[in-house]
Amino acid sequence: MALWWQQPVKPLDESARAVARLRQDNLTKPPGSLGRLEQLAVELAAMQYRVKPRIEQPWITIFAGDHGVVAEGVSAFPQEVTQQMLANFVNGGAAISVLARAAGAHLEVVDAGTLAKAQLPGVLWAKAGDGSANFTLGPAMSEAQLVHCLDLGHSTVKRSITHGCDLFIGGEMGIGNTTSAAALACALLGLPGGELAGPGTGLDSGGVSHKAAVIDKALALHGFTKTEQIPPNPPLGKGGTVDLAHAALRCLGGFEIAALSGAYIACAQLGLPVLVDGFITTAAALAACRMNPGVRDWLLFAHASAEPGHARLLAALDAEPLLRLEMRLGEGSGAATALPLLRLACELHGGMATFAEAGVSGGN
Amino acid sequence: MALWWQQPVKPLDESARAVARLRQDNLTKPPGSLGRLEQLAVELAAMQYRVKPRIEQPWITIFAGDHGVVAEGVSAFPQEVTQQMLANFVNGGAAISVLARAAGAHLEVVDAGTLAKAQLPGVLWAKAGDGSANFTLGPAMSEAQLVHCLDLGHSTVKRSITHGCDLFIGGEMGIGNTTSAAALACALLGLPGGELAGPGTGLDSGGVSHKAAVIDKALALHGFTKTEQIPPNPPLGKGGTVDLAHAALRCLGGFEIAALSGAYIACAQLGLPVLVDGFITTAAALAACRMNPGVRDWLLFAHASAEPGHARLLAALDAEPLLRLEMRLGEGSGAATALPLLRLACELHGGMATFAEAGVSGGN
Repeated sequence: MALWWQQPVKPLDESARAVARLRQDNLTKPPGSLGRLEQLAVELAAMQYRVKPRIEQPWITIFAGDHGVVAEGVSAFPQEVTQQMLANFVNGGAAISVLARAAGAHLEVVDAGTLAKAQLPGVLWAKAGDGSANFTLGPAMSEAQLVHCLDLGHSTVKRSITHGCDLFIGGEMGIGNTTSAAALACALLGLPGGELAGPGTGLDSGGVSHKAAVIDKALALHGFTKTEQIPPNPPLGKGGTVDLAHAALRCLGGFEIAALSGAYIACAQLGLPVLVDGFITTAAALAACRMNPGVRDWLLFAHASAEPGHARLLAALDAEPLLRLEMRLGEGSGAATALPLLRLACELHGGMATFAEAGVSGGN
Repeated sequence: MALWWQQPVKPLDESARAVARLRQDNLTKPPGSLGRLEQLAVELAAMQYRVKPRIEQPWITIFAGDHGVVAEGVSAFPQEVTQQMLANFVNGGAAISVLARAAGAHLEVVDAGTLAKAQLPGVLWAKAGDGSANFTLGPAMSEAQLVHCLDLGHSTVKRSITHGCDLFIGGEMGIGNTTSAAALACALLGLPGGELAGPGTGLDSGGVSHKAAVIDKALALHGFTKTEQIPPNPPLGKGGTVDLAHAALRCLGGFEIAALSGAYIACAQLGLPVLVDGFITTAAALAACRMNPGVRDWLLFAHASAEPGHARLLAALDAEPLLRLEMRLGEGSGAATALPLLRLACELHGGMATFAEAGVSGGN
């Protein structure tokens, strides 16, 4: 029996897409003049199985985890900041708190495996462990921990759907997680650490070089040392691409990253559109798409992060993000910032008059 | 006595800017990690003379005009669409109607000189004439008509301020106005028509070539035939840059374009931040900045239009727009789409906790 994350995704509604496309061409504007807002509305129509899509109940889950690799000196901020920021999310002072309020979005914070000794007030307690292991010394997590995190993503998405969610945003918090995300993506794309290591929360160039060396050490330890692009399908030494992604997530991922991968796969299977945030979430999305290629159809990409490796990840997913605002905060903040564009796309699509309705010359 | 549009603009509040910058650096995020949203908030603080800027009452005025140059066959849509679209704006079916509702923005439509024989319901009647003249045969408008339009922009902005407006968006409607805007910008930048003529509402390549030839004919007729970059200041044959801009607006502009230029100058003098829309409004902004260089400080730029000449106009104004969504509709639609970003920038800036407030390690 196939594992749940290998089950097929929900197909898109091609009929709704076609009718939505036709509607766009009859709205009172030169055809195509709303640019990507038109494409977004049509894409969301196919995902939501309705000609006039809408985003009324966006849902943001922040998964948090700590990272053993922080012991290698890869972050500009101390590890205690992970827990401090969880409190800040809950207390409403963080960027994503402000953005969620502005969007009227449900915001929840899930501890997928920080170093917290007890449940933080207002944070869902779903720890896979006390932080991932230092992946320069061994696998970041056990197979059981990986499955726990994938399942956590799945159950989160099911809960969001129960509450009426019509768009899912995953965020993340975890000091050290740009190192984990970069290492994971290097393994998936067959790149050395120097290609994807970046400043994260604020490393200088020496820090970035060190981070790249730490990643290279881990890639060598775990056998992910192919340096040219890995072909899309042929089986590698460790098995097929699906198995490679699974192994990379276990050896190099973080608890919050694995939970995000699980959530994205679940969204695609259950038919919930996803708005992907920045560097770390895109690495999780890449892993999800390698584990289950149909997932890609359900992903919209919010923004191009200032983290330099993000462009490479987006290219690997053939993704053109909506915003380029040099943001690099994580937490889901880029996705929450792009959310108004999705809503305006839906409102224009559903609310504009057609040429016939308005008595304007033009259209079909 | 200097004419009103030559009077100095209001200075920015450098003290509010400095305090706002300091605040940004103490919010609970890695410094700079909100990218351009940080810069936007700081810039708005300097414009609004308050450390925590806000956009509570955005105001959108659409100026409309018809264009005699349409007789040269430069538009893909018939001229009657100008008036039909005014009705659509008022009736709520146009893109800008939907976007204004979503933003809670005041939307007004001003007839600066369409071919309408009588006032359209819900449209302010302030006509400079029955459409501009065909500028391939003579000046687009008289000096008196130009002054009427500049004054119209000025009185519009004063009215918006009386109503509590804290951000001004100008939109435009006028079949043929990409030709007028391109011709105006060619005159201001010393470029031939081929450099700025584009498809507008949907010309094919033959149509674009014809449009460029029409512009070149007009540039020659009115003596704007310099083909290299006009230096920023030294007086030209027709007088200084200020006089050149005034003459270019009169000879090649449209009533709605001149009203926009007047509105932008008035905003800068009265201290109201402007969010500039797309190709046509940027041409009007360029003319405004040439007539009164201080105006530039008060302009934010919403989006990069798909109209190919827009990039050149933005470069001439040293402007980096917020969005790149391949929009090319006009009406103020790009600015209204970018408006949520300005608001989120303000909300993040005002609503996030500082490191000290949140008890998070880091910051100054």
